[in-house]
Amino acid sequence: MSECPTYGLMPVDTAIDILQQAGRKKLPIIEEVSLIAALGRVLAEDVFSAIDVPPQANSAMDGYAVNTADLLGDMPFSVSQRIAAGSQPVHLVQGTIARIFTGAVIPEGANAVVMQEDCQLLDDGRVKILDTVTEQENIRPQGQDIVCGQRILQQGERLNAAAIGLLATIGKPTVHVYRPLKVAFFSTGDELVEAGKPLTIGQIYNSNRSLIHSLLISMGFIAIDGGVIADNLPATLAAFKKASESADVIISTGGVSVGEEDHVKAAIQQCGEIDLWKIAIKPGKPLAFGRVGDVPFIGLPGNPQSVWVTFLVLARQFLINYQGQRHKLLPHAIPVKSSFSIKKAQNRREYLRVRLEATENGLTMTRHVNQSSGVLSSAVWADGLAIIEKGQIIAEGELLPFLSFSSFGVA
Amino acid sequence: MSECPTYGLMPVDTAIDILQQAGRKKLPIIEEVSLIAALGRVLAEDVFSAIDVPPQANSAMDGYAVNTADLLGDMPFSVSQRIAAGSQPVHLVQGTIARIFTGAVIPEGANAVVMQEDCQLLDDGRVKILDTVTEQENIRPQGQDIVCGQRILQQGERLNAAAIGLLATIGKPTVHVYRPLKVAFFSTGDELVEAGKPLTIGQIYNSNRSLIHSLLISMGFIAIDGGVIADNLPATLAAFKKASESADVIISTGGVSVGEEDHVKAAIQQCGEIDLWKIAIKPGKPLAFGRVGDVPFIGLPGNPQSVWVTFLVLARQFLINYQGQRHKLLPHAIPVKSSFSIKKAQNRREYLRVRLEATENGLTMTRHVNQSSGVLSSAVWADGLAIIEKGQIIAEGELLPFLSFSSFGVA
Repeated sequence: MSECPTYGLMPVDTAIDILQQAGRKKLPIIEEVSLIAALGRVLAEDVFSAIDVPPQANSAMDGYAVNTADLLGDMPFSVSQRIAAGSQPVHLVQGTIARIFTGAVIPEGANAVVMQEDCQLLDDGRVKILDTVTEQENIRPQGQDIVCGQRILQQGERLNAAAIGLLATIGKPTVHVYRPLKVAFFSTGDELVEAGKPLTIGQIYNSNRSLIHSLLISMGFIAIDGGVIADNLPATLAAFKKASESADVIISTGGVSVGEEDHVKAAIQQCGEIDLWKIAIKPGKPLAFGRVGDVPFIGLPGNPQSVWVTFLVLARQFLINYQGQRHKLLPHAIPVKSSFSIKKAQNRREYLRVRLEATENGLTMTRHVNQSSGVLSSAVWADGLAIIEKGQIIAEGELLPFLSFSSFGVA
Repeated sequence: MSECPTYGLMPVDTAIDILQQAGRKKLPIIEEVSLIAALGRVLAEDVFSAIDVPPQANSAMDGYAVNTADLLGDMPFSVSQRIAAGSQPVHLVQGTIARIFTGAVIPEGANAVVMQEDCQLLDDGRVKILDTVTEQENIRPQGQDIVCGQRILQQGERLNAAAIGLLATIGKPTVHVYRPLKVAFFSTGDELVEAGKPLTIGQIYNSNRSLIHSLLISMGFIAIDGGVIADNLPATLAAFKKASESADVIISTGGVSVGEEDHVKAAIQQCGEIDLWKIAIKPGKPLAFGRVGDVPFIGLPGNPQSVWVTFLVLARQFLINYQGQRHKLLPHAIPVKSSFSIKKAQNRREYLRVRLEATENGLTMTRHVNQSSGVLSSAVWADGLAIIEKGQIIAEGELLPFLSFSSFGVA
């Protein structure tokens, strides 16, 4: 059990630190995949370029390649060659110019490109240069963008579309990435019923199962659906043991409060270790962290709104580290004006579901009317989370840190 | 050709408007899929709840269900029943209390729940209530979150993990969504070589092909890779005609500038319609929009950095509308402090690749040193785009609109 300051609750940032550190203990298996298959994956190698980009000096414009030393007087020039992108030029004949297109290689003997708008094509095929041009003008030098031997991407970077495009730029056909984590997930609660079946009194539909499944898929993990665990110790123990044989991580929802009906703690104590945290977070608070055998385990609360927030703020930090990601780990909170006030301080950091709205006073955040609801209506309505610190009173118009859902990679 | 104000360039917002309007002309085919398969898809129906959530009043706490009328004096109470979540209670025996757990149905005859921390269990099994409780305290009333008949999601919403969780809450097993768009994409340019092959002089590796492919997959579209079109008219015409037989949209990169080597315009004029726009955007400027037969066509520039920006800012607006999305279409630009100054006004709106950095002066945006590079290094390095309006001079520390890459759904 880790430090629990004021009010006996663990600060959110302490929980994040512990989860990040724990996530760095082991790296997943490495596999080599094609570029397109690497989209969304975490790079397992530093990537160095084996070429200069551009590989030769080329033209930034459609126009004429010239030697500036020839550009004295206003005599028209003969066009001695035509260089399209992809073609191989010959040495520029002295006293002539070359027709050239964007991306085409600058011929030896030329040292500038005059854009075609600054040239006049005469009836006899010769060309008059209408404007002055300086050496190297409109030329992209060899290696301007990437120098041979340069590191273009680092181990631990998550590969988005731009990174895949960058890998393609240096002609890399395959790349080493970490195998996606296999995450087994369970829900607990005898009251849970699957969609499509009728409810009897006391039953509710299981929303956490679909929520966790969707969150895991959104983040690129392999989701192993362990279903609903019956509210008894042998079933709970058997389910966790079975999951630990195939999964890299186990996540459960519900079953980690202090009620007599919660068997998760007892089960995991028999086959691993479990800490029950009370975190200074709202919604959320109870979170379990431990292991089943050697497989890390995270126990989220049972309320779907709490699952949403604790998954994004806490569980995600463990998962992306454990996946091998080492860059851009924490989303940036951006200050945005609040359209609401808060008069009563809380003893937990609160993550309000808020929506961005363009008003005559600029961009503001509006909070969902029902922050206490268990269901996910506010999460669907909102664009992200506003952070209210413990003990904080908020005046309307005050700047508050805003974390967009998209910055967590799940919107 | 649409309006072209100052400098003969079309304002970016005009281009966005035209693309959005054009994207609303037709809706894709509807299909019914399971909830998990609906993740990331666009909803083709309004969804109404057929149940109240919660379906019955239930307990917000682990504790004891009581009738407040009985709570006079400090006599201990007998516990007449035990109600776990998922079980069906009987009417509360007058003068007794019921053990109850979070989420369990409130028995008839009870009107409040005393949390267990405010109760004392005596040796004889009876319970003393140590604190006062008011009517309805710690009870979640029936229908508090969702009322039967309420619309919980609208046609045209993109279904993220929270929306899938919300659909599960009302027990919906399947949902009607639009079939993902089939987007065929091409690159043009005889200089392009595929990864893994050696380069000869004048050749470069094809990065746009992987970039566009990755962008389309990131956004959930079905990407049809049409490869590289040879730089001649018959090949270009044949490729576009073939793509129009299976694709919903066609995208190309390169081939839409004014150079003699560009055959896209001529080809599409023979089998459809094409407008060549010069947009007041940097990077970017040339963009083609038209149709091949009845299939919408977007021609992006050839420079990968221009592809990245024009895809996010312009093409994406057409695509998400054409996919049927009608909500949260434009990402919100959030004002963030610039760590740089700009002394020379441009005649185009510029989208700078910037990175967010937490400094002692709060959150600032730093721009990538090489904004003019064609390669995607700056897009990989950056967190998003800072918008500099045409003619704008920027002082260090000024607030500039910031669009995160993640807000476009592609980070």
